[in-house]
Amino acid sequence: MAEEIGVGMLGYAFMGKAPSNGYRKLAYMTWPPPLVPRLVAIAGRNETAVGEAALRYGFERAVTDWRDLVADPEIGLFDNSGPNNTHAEPTIAAAEAGKHVICEKPLARTADEGYEMWQRVEKAGVKHMTAFNYRFVPAVRLARQMLEAGEIGEVLHFRGRYLQEWGTTTEDAWRFHRDAAGSGALGDLGAHVIDQARYLVGEIAAVSASARTFAPGRDVDDAFEAVVEFDGQALGTIEATRFAAGRKNALSWEINGTKGSLAFDLERLNELQHSEGTKGFRTILVTESDHPFWEWWWPHGHIIGWEHIFVHEIHHLLDAIANGGDVAPHGATFEDGYRAAEVCDAVLRSAESGGREQLAYRS
Amino acid sequence: MAEEIGVGMLGYAFMGKAPSNGYRKLAYMTWPPPLVPRLVAIAGRNETAVGEAALRYGFERAVTDWRDLVADPEIGLFDNSGPNNTHAEPTIAAAEAGKHVICEKPLARTADEGYEMWQRVEKAGVKHMTAFNYRFVPAVRLARQMLEAGEIGEVLHFRGRYLQEWGTTTEDAWRFHRDAAGSGALGDLGAHVIDQARYLVGEIAAVSASARTFAPGRDVDDAFEAVVEFDGQALGTIEATRFAAGRKNALSWEINGTKGSLAFDLERLNELQHSEGTKGFRTILVTESDHPFWEWWWPHGHIIGWEHIFVHEIHHLLDAIANGGDVAPHGATFEDGYRAAEVCDAVLRSAESGGREQLAYRS
Amino acid sequence: MAEEIGVGMLGYAFMGKAPSNGYRKLAYMTWPPPLVPRLVAIAGRNETAVGEAALRYGFERAVTDWRDLVADPEIGLFDNSGPNNTHAEPTIAAAEAGKHVICEKPLARTADEGYEMWQRVEKAGVKHMTAFNYRFVPAVRLARQMLEAGEIGEVLHFRGRYLQEWGTTTEDAWRFHRDAAGSGALGDLGAHVIDQARYLVGEIAAVSASARTFAPGRDVDDAFEAVVEFDGQALGTIEATRFAAGRKNALSWEINGTKGSLAFDLERLNELQHSEGTKGFRTILVTESDHPFWEWWWPHGHIIGWEHIFVHEIHHLLDAIANGGDVAPHGATFEDGYRAAEVCDAVLRSAESGGREQLAYRS
Amino acid sequence: MAEEIGVGMLGYAFMGKAPSNGYRKLAYMTWPPPLVPRLVAIAGRNETAVGEAALRYGFERAVTDWRDLVADPEIGLFDNSGPNNTHAEPTIAAAEAGKHVICEKPLARTADEGYEMWQRVEKAGVKHMTAFNYRFVPAVRLARQMLEAGEIGEVLHFRGRYLQEWGTTTEDAWRFHRDAAGSGALGDLGAHVIDQARYLVGEIAAVSASARTFAPGRDVDDAFEAVVEFDGQALGTIEATRFAAGRKNALSWEINGTKGSLAFDLERLNELQHSEGTKGFRTILVTESDHPFWEWWWPHGHIIGWEHIFVHEIHHLLDAIANGGDVAPHGATFEDGYRAAEVCDAVLRSAESGGREQLAYRS
Repeated sequence: MAEEIGVGMLGYAFMGKAPSNGYRKLAYMTWPPPLVPRLVAIAGRNETAVGEAALRYGFERAVTDWRDLVADPEIGLFDNSGPNNTHAEPTIAAAEAGKHVICEKPLARTADEGYEMWQRVEKAGVKHMTAFNYRFVPAVRLARQMLEAGEIGEVLHFRGRYLQEWGTTTEDAWRFHRDAAGSGALGDLGAHVIDQARYLVGEIAAVSASARTFAPGRDVDDAFEAVVEFDGQALGTIEATRFAAGRKNALSWEINGTKGSLAFDLERLNELQHSEGTKGFRTILVTESDHPFWEWWWPHGHIIGWEHIFVHEIHHLLDAIANGGDVAPHGATFEDGYRAAEVCDAVLRSAESGGREQLAYRS
Repeated sequence: MAEEIGVGMLGYAFMGKAPSNGYRKLAYMTWPPPLVPRLVAIAGRNETAVGEAALRYGFERAVTDWRDLVADPEIGLFDNSGPNNTHAEPTIAAAEAGKHVICEKPLARTADEGYEMWQRVEKAGVKHMTAFNYRFVPAVRLARQMLEAGEIGEVLHFRGRYLQEWGTTTEDAWRFHRDAAGSGALGDLGAHVIDQARYLVGEIAAVSASARTFAPGRDVDDAFEAVVEFDGQALGTIEATRFAAGRKNALSWEINGTKGSLAFDLERLNELQHSEGTKGFRTILVTESDHPFWEWWWPHGHIIGWEHIFVHEIHHLLDAIANGGDVAPHGATFEDGYRAAEVCDAVLRSAESGGREQLAYRS
Repeated sequence: MAEEIGVGMLGYAFMGKAPSNGYRKLAYMTWPPPLVPRLVAIAGRNETAVGEAALRYGFERAVTDWRDLVADPEIGLFDNSGPNNTHAEPTIAAAEAGKHVICEKPLARTADEGYEMWQRVEKAGVKHMTAFNYRFVPAVRLARQMLEAGEIGEVLHFRGRYLQEWGTTTEDAWRFHRDAAGSGALGDLGAHVIDQARYLVGEIAAVSASARTFAPGRDVDDAFEAVVEFDGQALGTIEATRFAAGRKNALSWEINGTKGSLAFDLERLNELQHSEGTKGFRTILVTESDHPFWEWWWPHGHIIGWEHIFVHEIHHLLDAIANGGDVAPHGATFEDGYRAAEVCDAVLRSAESGGREQLAYRS
Repeated sequence: MAEEIGVGMLGYAFMGKAPSNGYRKLAYMTWPPPLVPRLVAIAGRNETAVGEAALRYGFERAVTDWRDLVADPEIGLFDNSGPNNTHAEPTIAAAEAGKHVICEKPLARTADEGYEMWQRVEKAGVKHMTAFNYRFVPAVRLARQMLEAGEIGEVLHFRGRYLQEWGTTTEDAWRFHRDAAGSGALGDLGAHVIDQARYLVGEIAAVSASARTFAPGRDVDDAFEAVVEFDGQALGTIEATRFAAGRKNALSWEINGTKGSLAFDLERLNELQHSEGTKGFRTILVTESDHPFWEWWWPHGHIIGWEHIFVHEIHHLLDAIANGGDVAPHGATFEDGYRAAEVCDAVLRSAESGGREQLAYRS
């Protein structure tokens, strides 16, 4: 039986529910697990709410100050599922206290903040992961494998969109404020598209963008549209909006190469579309026993859901911790989180200046 | 916090993995749960394998004789996930020992066997459920609600298919033998279609069928096709095969009514197709907060997978046990299991005789 | 330049409009045409209406008695687009007057009538074609070519449906009366499915069917469902209804073979779905320059419509007339029309008797 | 019976075949036609080829100099289906000779050339139309009607793409040379997207673009990507490429408004997707008797093809000529052609400069 690793989690709302489930589930589904997560403590400011979350998900303790997680010697992995403005300080502190860290995306509100996080955490010598969880969708991993194998040749185009519809809400939320969120649809949705583009195609060299805030009372973007130039010849678009009626959670992309094309839509996350050359698109139901991650699940055709992506992601991180492997390239590191933040910053600069912004990544 | 209920499970292979996960998951996802499942013991003939299953899924004990489950006073719910020829005796024994019972489908290999099970278990006064889990797909429950609300008027047609492709295997399996399985594609896949038809449309009055065994060495059907007449005016087809290349797990149906139509496909289980009148089919992504079962899950558009159906099903049963409610109509009882077996028997009789078989259900 | 052939047409309503367009269009689109159709005369009982039809479509003469067409020496091809009860007498008379004949489907109201037509016309020594036009959809021809080439192996299943929704109309029509139409959804829609099954899979050996008339005042079926056994091992279903809300013109089928599957839907008639083995379905947009009939049309991706099927069909017939070729196997002859009528008769007999009906074709 | 109008056509290749068919077909399909097209003469440089085209399509004369068309008093409508570098001079000459004119898109190779054409032709007092034929797809017209009726509220986003795959060809073509074509994918495909955006959403105020030439030996773009800002608040993207393997003729767009969304794909041109509010997308098969242009065609569900768009377009123009109506707003005038050219120019300028280009339209 594998050893245990103590997990401390910051955040207990929606974005804490999914990883909590992930930790519990991987313990028996990815059998035998690389490490057995022990849910040591969960932190949140509302004592009653965090107490109930602890009871529900099986954390041994609930605390109201994240510093208690950092100070806890039983915690080996710090999972930051809090709002964007709580990413930097607690995560850096946890890493500097010797804990491995995983942080919700976007890693940071700005590239500067992201760079600081990456540098400090890297220096601390722990494993670090930015929770760009959609890298761990089986169809996305399969696409990456096919791209690496040259099945669609050289990439010429990437067109990625993340469309949601809930921006029409009249309720307020931290996601609508620059102080807390950094940006709007850009950091929340666009960052995922940027990370998919980087994971599947390569580094982004330049962006030209426009942005809009449709709803009153918000100081972040509700939508942006960007043209992106990749290193090399590939050209594409990255788009995100919270105002696409009828699109619930539509992260979709299409990649055209010299020998074929691939396409994906998160609302049908078990499917990958592939045109071998110009033969037309075939729907691959990514549930075969030799497909990525499928060894852990069900007979083919018995689809998985959104939450399972977290199981894959956390398994990858625990495996790196247990066996000393690298988080990259399949997991997003803090460097990946920082680089996505550079692209986000460039989108905002371009939207304001009207000029094409060249990317310069710090090392 | 809810009370505990001790669970004893027979079977640890594929069909035990899914409910084991269901018991663990509902304890924190359908919060607060009606009863907290305590995984007391799991039974199987291979001592090493059942021991590992117990360790993996968190059962307190592993046993090699199902009679130990029946005799165990800590077990309040007996879950029979074994092959078809192990359904009757252990399940009846468990019920007569006062345990609530849930049994994998098809309930029985013949209508006679199913009738005996239903009668004995009903007499024992416990809750009983046949695991026709696809009643608990959110899209299927929504369809049922829409049908009850008259949204598509009177039903005229039901066309249901369950298509799989693995019948080409050259390996042997208990599912290919009449002694163990009762029938082939019919009991394995067709029974699901029959239950969906009964749940959504109504009782089946007559069937005309043909069947085929394509592969050598099998004494059960690989495929069957049936015309079905329902009580009332509705007319339809029920089909199943293990020889539909490209179809992985394609349980699909279309229902036409006087005011509209509904359609469903298990390979895209989060979607329901609805034509309001003749306006054309709309894709309802069944993930809104007011959709069936969705209170337990995620923001809309974040789809669930096949395994979650078990959570819904077990929750329904535990709720009936905890609160004294009825398993019917949303849960399939042993009476439903028996009635599906009557239809299966009629399909086989019709395939052999060439005549339209009228159904006569025992009460 | 090709020689002319004089065309005489019976019928000027919907079913005359489509072939009239076909004759005009093939003269310049299938260039050079095998014969140049000269629209000599059109016949109908309403003098004003048939006169306007002649003016509109460019027929030289309008007549109110089909016998004038039969007597006209300038007419070399008799096109019967009239209602079902006007098929036999005029068509036989035209053939016996030495004219080639094409007749709308269903060829006849009964197998007896169809057999008489086939025998008499065959004896007359002219070319004869039953207008099962959907054989001439490029995707259907491509499917036939793929089947002949063994691309999906031996056929195991055929599931065909023709679903429409207009049966709810409260207007009367000849199609609702047995005297004029022979049968209802069966002869109108089901005959197409039967012909597709015969063209793509092979001869039908037995049928088990049920039928329903939903609307008052009709003495024909509004819907039927049938299980079909083919010569050899293949098993399937054939279904048709005029009561499928949301389905406009949904002739669709799926064929499963030992090496793959094919699927088609007339509402997207430019597409053929193909699963190579179990790899999943690929959408072939049947518009490539090497696809059937495509030499006559447009650059790929520029789809054709329903009416173009008639161009393909008439071209095939004119080519057989001009060059002495056979109408079969790609064109449906009167023998094919007769055989489809045998299957229709068997469906009605089975629906009434409740027994599986074996087919016996006369030669 | 309507009066005749003499048609003179420049160009006999692919882009002449479609309108030739249109003129012939509308004469009997849009019955009674507003004017009866008389195919007077067709012009082309290759005497043999243009002679065969005349014979095939039924033009009375073939000429090798377009000036003969301009001088011909029997010609009332000049249809310019030639390459882009033959648009300006012949079209202006024809208009100044008093003939109505229709010109293939893009109207001109540059905004300057387009402005000159528009001004000269407008001054000549004839009807003028730029052949942005996709305005005449029934689904596109229906979308426009729904937008005008406010069915999706205020438009927030337009995302349009025109993807083809044939850019990999190693053959040369006039479309690959700036002198003849003006631009590459931009003028050929992008101009259609720009016109759809203008027709459905409104005027484009600014563009930010990048472009690429993938194949050697071409001095035009093979692909471009652009962010567009509309007058008002709407934001979107316009993209086109000749290097999208698997996409044959994929002009597609999605429009998100405050009350719903619409989506379209030319490869399934009979369908319009509509989300009423956030209810999810419904497939409207645009073939009902009350749908745009459908009065001329078939029973619902019997789809039309790409060529029929030309019938609708030419009918619109002939109706304006016969009845003195305006070509705008449903038909694209030369002003529309000019304005699209302004956007194309701005895309090229932005691709080169890297800056967001503001549009300034001349009046």
